[in-house]
Amino acid sequence: MADQQVVAVYDVESWLPPRAAAEVLANEQSTGTFVRVPGESDALRTRFGATVVEVTPLPDSGNTPLPGAARPPEAGPRPHRARVRIAFPLHNFGPSVPNLLAAVAGNLFELREMAAVRLADLDLPAPFAGRYPGPAFGTAGTRRLMGAPDGTLIGTIVKPGVGLRLDALRALVRELAMAGIDFVKDDELNGNPPHAPLRERIKVVNEELDRAADLTGRRTMYAFNITDDIGRLEANHDLVREAGGTCVMVCVQTVGLAGVAHLRAHATLPIHGHRAMSGALLRSPQIGISPLVFQKLARLSGVDQLHVGGIGSKFYETDEDVVASVHAMRTPFLGGYEALPVLSSGQWPGLAHRALELTGTSDLLVLAGGGIHAHPQGPGAGVAAMRSAWRAAAEGEPLAEAAARDRTLALALERFGGIRG
Amino acid sequence: MADQQVVAVYDVESWLPPRAAAEVLANEQSTGTFVRVPGESDALRTRFGATVVEVTPLPDSGNTPLPGAARPPEAGPRPHRARVRIAFPLHNFGPSVPNLLAAVAGNLFELREMAAVRLADLDLPAPFAGRYPGPAFGTAGTRRLMGAPDGTLIGTIVKPGVGLRLDALRALVRELAMAGIDFVKDDELNGNPPHAPLRERIKVVNEELDRAADLTGRRTMYAFNITDDIGRLEANHDLVREAGGTCVMVCVQTVGLAGVAHLRAHATLPIHGHRAMSGALLRSPQIGISPLVFQKLARLSGVDQLHVGGIGSKFYETDEDVVASVHAMRTPFLGGYEALPVLSSGQWPGLAHRALELTGTSDLLVLAGGGIHAHPQGPGAGVAAMRSAWRAAAEGEPLAEAAARDRTLALALERFGGIRG
Repeated sequence: MADQQVVAVYDVESWLPPRAAAEVLANEQSTGTFVRVPGESDALRTRFGATVVEVTPLPDSGNTPLPGAARPPEAGPRPHRARVRIAFPLHNFGPSVPNLLAAVAGNLFELREMAAVRLADLDLPAPFAGRYPGPAFGTAGTRRLMGAPDGTLIGTIVKPGVGLRLDALRALVRELAMAGIDFVKDDELNGNPPHAPLRERIKVVNEELDRAADLTGRRTMYAFNITDDIGRLEANHDLVREAGGTCVMVCVQTVGLAGVAHLRAHATLPIHGHRAMSGALLRSPQIGISPLVFQKLARLSGVDQLHVGGIGSKFYETDEDVVASVHAMRTPFLGGYEALPVLSSGQWPGLAHRALELTGTSDLLVLAGGGIHAHPQGPGAGVAAMRSAWRAAAEGEPLAEAAARDRTLALALERFGGIRG
Repeated sequence: MADQQVVAVYDVESWLPPRAAAEVLANEQSTGTFVRVPGESDALRTRFGATVVEVTPLPDSGNTPLPGAARPPEAGPRPHRARVRIAFPLHNFGPSVPNLLAAVAGNLFELREMAAVRLADLDLPAPFAGRYPGPAFGTAGTRRLMGAPDGTLIGTIVKPGVGLRLDALRALVRELAMAGIDFVKDDELNGNPPHAPLRERIKVVNEELDRAADLTGRRTMYAFNITDDIGRLEANHDLVREAGGTCVMVCVQTVGLAGVAHLRAHATLPIHGHRAMSGALLRSPQIGISPLVFQKLARLSGVDQLHVGGIGSKFYETDEDVVASVHAMRTPFLGGYEALPVLSSGQWPGLAHRALELTGTSDLLVLAGGGIHAHPQGPGAGVAAMRSAWRAAAEGEPLAEAAARDRTLALALERFGGIRG
């Protein structure tokens, strides 16, 4: 039976008693409408109804109830809060992510009975693995293509993210590749814009990566941002592959999970998943979905590498949130689907020791944008400083000691410490 | 210049002064990172930077700030709140919805500086119309295919939404079509599930619609829920068309806007856009996007009919929200893109007069699920009662008078009045 059901976990707030709220949710998302209808027999409800598995009370969040939340006149000032588990029969929708979402994350967000409702976790049965192959490369495949069998992977984002001319891009990529960086990506803001068409970026970048590889013996992985309309994803991917590129990037939320799965079915290169726009679904505790659910669905859809925020980030997540995401990304489900966690946002060498200690793994791709480019001696030195800091962290050498013998690191700490420390 | 920029309107809360918060947002979403980088010249910033056009203070919302919102130690207890308009150069991303979204609705949701941030409106320049043809049918085309040149369009959803056997579906569709209903749709929960494959539903339904059309002279439009992985949308659409079907439905949010645009490029049938999951983005005033933005993007992507909630609905939106959405759907942008507003959720005959008065238009497709199926005399009588109520509303006849001469309507009011009144 476990192979024939999906279990969804929700954090809900409601002025209804928690079990009654859970029943409303289960009913709305399976056989019910606002009134019992003729065909809704008991037998049909038994076979197709979603069932409430567990209800665990939680303390009051103190948060403002969602608009339109129904509060009966006689009710107290605050809604109840609970974590509820609901089991959905798989035969209601089959192993299709777009149809799954209509059930486990569909109209329920609009229910008046809910003063808050957030999809916190999702257990999927084996048939999903039959439909969605997931990451073709993951951490191991990414390392293999990079020629980087161990150690924390160091990367950067092309900055400025928008507006860099091709000649400036060429010089920048040359310097980064010659400095031995593992990974470079386009900014999520830079797809196929009129001012710097993807086709031209691919040509310029790959020329520089090839040249550097001839000299250094290792080819930097570059994730070209191929985000675009669905009908262009395949052609964009092929442009990258034909030019010798080794990675493509898409904004998971703006092409959609279905778009990622579509690309995955065609792709022969690893897929770097960017989180742009996902904050709209993930950040509020009152509505939307959790990072855990987003990651599972993105991995199921086929991303090999996925952004999970950054330790000491400029964004909203706490370090604890990010560490939980790193662990979740590396935890198998349905017997696989591990993907490489990507740390980014406000990253710089001074964070290496804390990040390694908190995450406890070197299977990380750490992206520093400004934290590499704005190094006083230029981006190449920025790469060296990042590498140096992470190597020191791995070897248990205190940051100050590493900086005392490595001038690029000392300069980086001096430059960024005041801003980001 | 207006043809070369996108203007995005945000409602933001921040402990920064509103203009400073707007500058953070504009900078993050165009040329900036956390530190000025070498290539970020003044010339580049002038040409590619997003610019703050207008900042209008708003009163305190009283809402809980988003997690991670940065509150400086010396700041007051509540963040500032403002509506800000930001102009993005089109050449930063070009007329591509997935790339547009990475800019106007990307990482910004994650900024610590934002205690709330919601995309409230979006003005798109003409090049988007060159890329996205929008609704191929809209209201006029839908009416033409239905053979319903005027009057409010009456529809229903197959209920129970999940689990109905094909023989029960056949009988239900027969009764509805013979009762002269304009439109029937699959439930959003019912796509292509193992228990009732789309292919079989298409066959059964179209046989009944053809048979009824021979007798009544009008063919009911049936929106088959073809929601699925991207690679299956075209084949699903073609199955419907080849069987003589006249409409397909997708869950806009679960196939993604990019998925809708992809279907639109192939489709020769009208696209019925369901809102399942969009509440996750639309409901919170603190984050996400407004219904107005969602509708514009869905219309741009090609939906002909789109759910906008319901008057007196069981969901969270107020009647004012729904009326605003109805008006927005019928308001052109870029010289077109009008689509048919679909009212649904808790609809029944007793709401007709209020809905018509509030919306002021009969260019509505009103879907009653339980409000038709649970009629004491069955779904056919449910259709008659809905039609009767809306006709009375259009003719200015009070509901009680209409019910006095129409037994089906009287029974409907008696049945549903206690539940929904």
